[in-house]
Amino acid sequence: MGMTITQKILAEKSGQSQVRPGQLIMAETDLVLGNDITAPVAIDEFYKIGCETVFDKTKIALVADHFTPNKDIKSAQLNKKMREFAHRHAITNYFDVGRAGIEHALIPEQGLALPGDLIIGADSHTCTYGALCAFSTGVGSTDMAGAMATGKVWLKVPEAIRFHLTGSLPEFVSGKDLILTIIGQIGVDGALYRSMEFSGSGIASLSMDDRFTVSNMAIEAGAKNGIFPVDEKTEDYLFEHANGKPYCRVAPDKDAEYVLEYEINLSALEPVVALPHLPDNVRKASELGAISIDQAVIGSCTNGRISDLRTAATILSGNHVAVRTIIIPATQEIYLQAVKEGLVQTFIEAGAVVSPPTCGPCLGGHMGVLASGERCVSTTNRNFVGRMGHPDSEVYLASPAVAAQSAIEGKIAVPGRKTI
Amino acid sequence: MGMTITQKILAEKSGQSQVRPGQLIMAETDLVLGNDITAPVAIDEFYKIGCETVFDKTKIALVADHFTPNKDIKSAQLNKKMREFAHRHAITNYFDVGRAGIEHALIPEQGLALPGDLIIGADSHTCTYGALCAFSTGVGSTDMAGAMATGKVWLKVPEAIRFHLTGSLPEFVSGKDLILTIIGQIGVDGALYRSMEFSGSGIASLSMDDRFTVSNMAIEAGAKNGIFPVDEKTEDYLFEHANGKPYCRVAPDKDAEYVLEYEINLSALEPVVALPHLPDNVRKASELGAISIDQAVIGSCTNGRISDLRTAATILSGNHVAVRTIIIPATQEIYLQAVKEGLVQTFIEAGAVVSPPTCGPCLGGHMGVLASGERCVSTTNRNFVGRMGHPDSEVYLASPAVAAQSAIEGKIAVPGRKTI
Repeated sequence: MGMTITQKILAEKSGQSQVRPGQLIMAETDLVLGNDITAPVAIDEFYKIGCETVFDKTKIALVADHFTPNKDIKSAQLNKKMREFAHRHAITNYFDVGRAGIEHALIPEQGLALPGDLIIGADSHTCTYGALCAFSTGVGSTDMAGAMATGKVWLKVPEAIRFHLTGSLPEFVSGKDLILTIIGQIGVDGALYRSMEFSGSGIASLSMDDRFTVSNMAIEAGAKNGIFPVDEKTEDYLFEHANGKPYCRVAPDKDAEYVLEYEINLSALEPVVALPHLPDNVRKASELGAISIDQAVIGSCTNGRISDLRTAATILSGNHVAVRTIIIPATQEIYLQAVKEGLVQTFIEAGAVVSPPTCGPCLGGHMGVLASGERCVSTTNRNFVGRMGHPDSEVYLASPAVAAQSAIEGKIAVPGRKTI
Repeated sequence: MGMTITQKILAEKSGQSQVRPGQLIMAETDLVLGNDITAPVAIDEFYKIGCETVFDKTKIALVADHFTPNKDIKSAQLNKKMREFAHRHAITNYFDVGRAGIEHALIPEQGLALPGDLIIGADSHTCTYGALCAFSTGVGSTDMAGAMATGKVWLKVPEAIRFHLTGSLPEFVSGKDLILTIIGQIGVDGALYRSMEFSGSGIASLSMDDRFTVSNMAIEAGAKNGIFPVDEKTEDYLFEHANGKPYCRVAPDKDAEYVLEYEINLSALEPVVALPHLPDNVRKASELGAISIDQAVIGSCTNGRISDLRTAATILSGNHVAVRTIIIPATQEIYLQAVKEGLVQTFIEAGAVVSPPTCGPCLGGHMGVLASGERCVSTTNRNFVGRMGHPDSEVYLASPAVAAQSAIEGKIAVPGRKTI
């Protein structure tokens, strides 16, 4: 029986010619990732189990992104712990304020995620690197501790669901609309501990940034990972970011087994919005009544990349926002690029504020926490009760295009079409 | 007996031809100011005393600056209270995220502080507008509540100290060095409940931004206010910002009484640093041994203006910071100007992060709070124990030039001179 992309990577990394869904394996990691919230817990565990050295100082990445620049004394102490660990073990890929960015945008940008890699991270959205045909998934801080010590992680080989994409996305419809549409269709547990594998001619029309957004939110359908094959766009991205490092183009076997298959015609997609309080509560944006908002957020590991900012700037240019609008380039490099392209100027002239890279408001951390009764349209990935602040606040998940147009109109709105 | 500038303004605003030091007066306010920390307290008091309408919706300014964009649920609730009050009373000068900035940079920029004005604000650094020959001073939130209702405030007429300035500042010596030198000389209670009045030919060499910095820190010597006469630079500033509004050029009487007089030769000043934990613990920067730092902050109501950013950019250009460096333009307009001039690009290329306007780290609020044992060089105004975070952290107050050079070297340093 043939294997999926995911199964092939897991077989390779566990030193086997074949693995089967449900099988427990011990696999080698190419990168072990943690951030300023999860790494300190892992570091405590690392020392508690008596470890003194890391398995490979070049294969650990520690990123200060969640509550940075430090939002309070507690986050300052956590960052200090991570910084001291990084210095003590000479961790190559330690990213502090000024060098950092949101981890899941930063890791690919730095060429630290390659096709065929096995990457684990103590953060649920580690699945983002599936866009580059890596097997990547979120783990707990104790698994991270173990992997920092041994370079290994145990995994259960997931079953796979195939999403076969055809057509191409219409204007102002993006990867965010694709993944929200999928989650709306299959539910937040629709891919529970399964691999979401993408195939089909439609992939070619998706930008790398679209693919990062799609893989990033695989976890919101409960998936273990969400993975794309390598194509020309992947190769172009890696040419720019991977500094010539070698990598494997992994393709699924023709007789790979999928427990479910879906066909999606990208051309038929529309802008959608996930209403409170689950990412699968998805509606077509055009079919919503007037939903007034108090704030718009454009950023996060889901949608803080340069193409997201370009889309937002296209819509905001020459307009003025009607509500508090916070725009967060996901990395320093993206921020710099946005300055150079004039996007930051456009944002400020439109009345938005531009924040340095941070996960911040996505998880109610800082930089735009909501008060009671407030409503926010956000390009982030979760709209759970209280996710962005007060338990009585609401988050509406949408694309950068919808978020930008909504910011201008003060209510959920679709670009190119005035709402009532 | 003649009157000082301050006494003349207080006489005018209390409807008297003359006031004397020590006299209690009830004065008319031209502007009543509050921020997201102090205004909510004032609003509660306003309603508690049974008020229903404000005295003049055009003479109240409410600015979201301390913990914005909202750093947590509590700050979100405070901002919500201020926003609702502003809407209910149609406050003309309500500044929310995106329109806001640090209040003491924003108010002059918006033409809301004019020579001869009497301005009170529920924030200790309200004394900043003395740079524009306004009498301005910090009050408590209950005084703010009373003034929002009646337009009046009670004040005790302060005695005055005269600072007679001659010469002109050397390169990389700024208003910050001047005021720190003064505070170092007279102490944090050296001007307690007194007016600091500046005079002399040296004033002409001080930029408006230098003067804002000097007046801003008058409170750090305990002063009630710190005030400059109007000159050509003041007029130029007002031409640009005051939209043609009329104002009074107030000059002191020749026989005005000063309880103390100091002569300061600006040409003889050097870059100085206030060591922990008081602003009067001032040393010449060149005489300090190697003091390593963990963070540099350039911003605040004291030093987040465009000339501060230009100075920092001049020094950072082509260099890379050695420590976490957080740069905070004080208003959206300053931020935009910094983008247009390429300063933001310089900062990011140097490895600094640029934050949207907020008081943030100055008061340990957010955007760069210190961990235990950490040391920060900062262009802010207070270095009290725990001011910027953990009680075991340390803040060194300095100019933007010293802060920028220190960021590059990773230790307190003077531009143009390498430290050991």
